[in-house]
Amino acid sequence: MSDIKRIGAGARMSEAVAYNGIVWLAGQVGNPGDSVEEQTKTCLAEVDRILAEAGTDKTRILSAQIWLADISTFGEMNKVWDSWVPAGNTPARATGEAKLATPDYLVEVIVTAALR
Amino acid sequence: MSDIKRIGAGARMSEAVAYNGIVWLAGQVGNPGDSVEEQTKTCLAEVDRILAEAGTDKTRILSAQIWLADISTFGEMNKVWDSWVPAGNTPARATGEAKLATPDYLVEVIVTAALR
Amino acid sequence: MSDIKRIGAGARMSEAVAYNGIVWLAGQVGNPGDSVEEQTKTCLAEVDRILAEAGTDKTRILSAQIWLADISTFGEMNKVWDSWVPAGNTPARATGEAKLATPDYLVEVIVTAALR
Repeated sequence: MSDIKRIGAGARMSEAVAYNGIVWLAGQVGNPGDSVEEQTKTCLAEVDRILAEAGTDKTRILSAQIWLADISTFGEMNKVWDSWVPAGNTPARATGEAKLATPDYLVEVIVTAALR
Repeated sequence: MSDIKRIGAGARMSEAVAYNGIVWLAGQVGNPGDSVEEQTKTCLAEVDRILAEAGTDKTRILSAQIWLADISTFGEMNKVWDSWVPAGNTPARATGEAKLATPDYLVEVIVTAALR
Repeated sequence: MSDIKRIGAGARMSEAVAYNGIVWLAGQVGNPGDSVEEQTKTCLAEVDRILAEAGTDKTRILSAQIWLADISTFGEMNKVWDSWVPAGNTPARATGEAKLATPDYLVEVIVTAALR
């Protein structure tokens, strides 16, 4: 199984799994207690960090799902997203409301990206 | 990065992103104010349009997620879905309830398809 | 279209669709009336069965989404998940709350895996 490369493989999940030129990231969250803007910044920074570990970056994201614990924070999340996402290289995206693992998590971002 | 092909690349997201023989579509929605049946028809027509632009079609859909703002409309959505999805070439599918970007959106369809 | 292989192709969806070395599974659910632990066991057994039919197994899962009808059952689901998922070969994972097709379904698991 040397063809599948797992990054940050824990007992429950891996941070990311690469195969066939594509990397699937685990859903990234921010820090409990922070605002939705802060949590969005934190989880997008985590995305950047994990993509770098996989040998790629945010200009190569293929698709993203964004789950908000409260969809009324759509605008706050988007403000952070819009300033982070690379112009000309935006992914396919879908955003919906879903309560997350604990009530303290306000946003989760799930990304699939192309390797280099 | 000429290997990744983005369709309808906007500042926030692309309509679709193709790579490695696969195309990921952004979540498609219908028109605010319309019934869930009408919105399902509209977003599946958008899927058809974007798949055509990517050079493929609905007989090559690999997976689909359907998000309904109100899961009690499962039957209404399915009536439209069942008449649209090509016999013998149905995708892997999952359907769940998720409130969408605005309360006027009743259904969102997220599709991944094979290119030709 | 012989390059796409559909498993359990029904009128509405396929159980799984394989293409380009990857297989996408439909969302798997358990049996109505069962506890969330039992339903998790049942749907993970279905994942095992379908992966076997595709010619692969749970050591090659790339990503998983878990939808819980009630996120407060996160711990019960995880107890079953943690004993099922193969050490050293865990997928990228995301878990959120989403009501499912009927109120009797408590958990749905959506898996993407690498073929052999």
